[in-house]
Amino acid sequence: MSGAPAVAIADWGTTRLRVWLLDAAGKALAERRADDGLIGARVKGFAAVLEAHLAAMGAATDLPVMICGMAGSRQGWVEAAYVDVPSPIAAILEGAVRVPGTARDIRIVPGLAQRREDRPDVIRGEETQLAGAGLPPTGRHLVCMPGTHSKWIEVEDGAVAGFGTWPTGELYSVLADHSILRHSLGENPAAVGAGNPAFRRWCEAALAEGGDIAGRLFSIRAAGLLHGLGEADAAACLSGLLIGGEIASASRRYRIAQEPLVLIASGALGALYGAALGFAGHTVRLVDADEAVRVGLFEAARHNGMIAVEPTDGDRQ
Amino acid sequence: MSGAPAVAIADWGTTRLRVWLLDAAGKALAERRADDGLIGARVKGFAAVLEAHLAAMGAATDLPVMICGMAGSRQGWVEAAYVDVPSPIAAILEGAVRVPGTARDIRIVPGLAQRREDRPDVIRGEETQLAGAGLPPTGRHLVCMPGTHSKWIEVEDGAVAGFGTWPTGELYSVLADHSILRHSLGENPAAVGAGNPAFRRWCEAALAEGGDIAGRLFSIRAAGLLHGLGEADAAACLSGLLIGGEIASASRRYRIAQEPLVLIASGALGALYGAALGFAGHTVRLVDADEAVRVGLFEAARHNGMIAVEPTDGDRQ
Repeated sequence: MSGAPAVAIADWGTTRLRVWLLDAAGKALAERRADDGLIGARVKGFAAVLEAHLAAMGAATDLPVMICGMAGSRQGWVEAAYVDVPSPIAAILEGAVRVPGTARDIRIVPGLAQRREDRPDVIRGEETQLAGAGLPPTGRHLVCMPGTHSKWIEVEDGAVAGFGTWPTGELYSVLADHSILRHSLGENPAAVGAGNPAFRRWCEAALAEGGDIAGRLFSIRAAGLLHGLGEADAAACLSGLLIGGEIASASRRYRIAQEPLVLIASGALGALYGAALGFAGHTVRLVDADEAVRVGLFEAARHNGMIAVEPTDGDRQ
Repeated sequence: MSGAPAVAIADWGTTRLRVWLLDAAGKALAERRADDGLIGARVKGFAAVLEAHLAAMGAATDLPVMICGMAGSRQGWVEAAYVDVPSPIAAILEGAVRVPGTARDIRIVPGLAQRREDRPDVIRGEETQLAGAGLPPTGRHLVCMPGTHSKWIEVEDGAVAGFGTWPTGELYSVLADHSILRHSLGENPAAVGAGNPAFRRWCEAALAEGGDIAGRLFSIRAAGLLHGLGEADAAACLSGLLIGGEIASASRRYRIAQEPLVLIASGALGALYGAALGFAGHTVRLVDADEAVRVGLFEAARHNGMIAVEPTDGDRQ
């Protein structure tokens, strides 16, 4: 019966947990968000945390659950060993690992490993967003997922060819909190708007220099001393510099020409990256990050035969 | 009489103070190092701190003192306003500012300001090392001063044409202490040796990418997860990446070809930068940083007529 929960899905990261109940067509029927990330769950027990949320949502005790994120890391619930790239996206989803010792059918999507000696890299969680981004099954597609550790993924004919990590969000935090720039940005740096002219100017300067950011960081401090740059604009400068640097660096590595980019993001970060990619001359298709992870987890459940096929609903691609 | 103190000099930074007594030929007769940086001195009083050190060294009450460093900043003792570049090095030294209200003749060398809108930057302290580096009076010379905030200075015919700051040492500290890389480097990162193959490999990788460092940072973490990279080698990777990135970026900005570089540094940092500049194909003349600041302060005292000329000693260039 459409409308009844067919599967539960969970995005389980280091600091937070999100759980949804989906019907057989992938429609969200209920959602819970909590700060039950890895660290807390290791103390309370992963099964206990998950079952408490499912019970609170009224989920049946035999409803299957598909999980992605750091819960599948070595420090998580059950290690879902990395799938090596290149790998078809479908094969990643089908590699979901069954949590042993639970009556309920619970599986975790594996992360990805890029083992090349010159660019070792790992992903855990973003592979599922990628699977939910609605990429065409053929052609080359470049996907940008901004965040604490921004990921760029190169997809060719439905397979992950390679990827890279730019820790842009983390650089922003550690520089704003712990470097000399904390004097420039102030105690609680203002949220940066994509329309801020300082954001644009510093983003464009970084774009023009191929990802070289270190030689400009101190200029934010100096602009305060010499030109009276204020705290809100200093935050915009730093944000523009780091995001512009990331885009320049990734554009160079992946030789982006005029093909459209897929940007998987939400809210303010989506607006900043959308603007910055525009400054760089890229055409962007924006996919909501929350929607992408839900669709990806649903696809993973389908690929693993966890959802009864209902002829009246048709397949969701 | 040669051998008697002719002047006292002090390098007074944010966290430490170094004082020397020099004879009329610039030879060091006595030295004291203390943690009496700006913060402590603002509490105790700059004059009291300086006089206590001079008294402990047996300096006469009328011995003149030349100072450089953050003591001349707005948060310091007396502000020695920035000299704008371009500026002849001699003019910087001659711009030393007299500390008012002291019986003793005490002066502070000004810092430098680069006011260009696209590259605002400031220096305070390094201008004095530059003056003591023994640069030829003509020609173009590029000077690298590694540190918490590395400075690169472009000198043309005895004048500072421009400069830039790369906060390489600070980036290393904040990333090692506060980013995800702290898990890779461990609690007390090992000192990095210039002969470490990981230092060389990551330095050369950074040199090949024009200063683009952000796209490789996370690979240090991933190399630990995928290839078993240990803590000491992770520290070497980060150091090589950041130093290589700085050199690549500065080489590009200042269009360094085959002219020799002047490296003003001491100890382990001098060895790391010497090696890294070698990987980049640069020929280097190494000047000891401690020696350079002493010579520069002595030159500043001479330029300001604070040292009685003694015909038997001859001039020191």
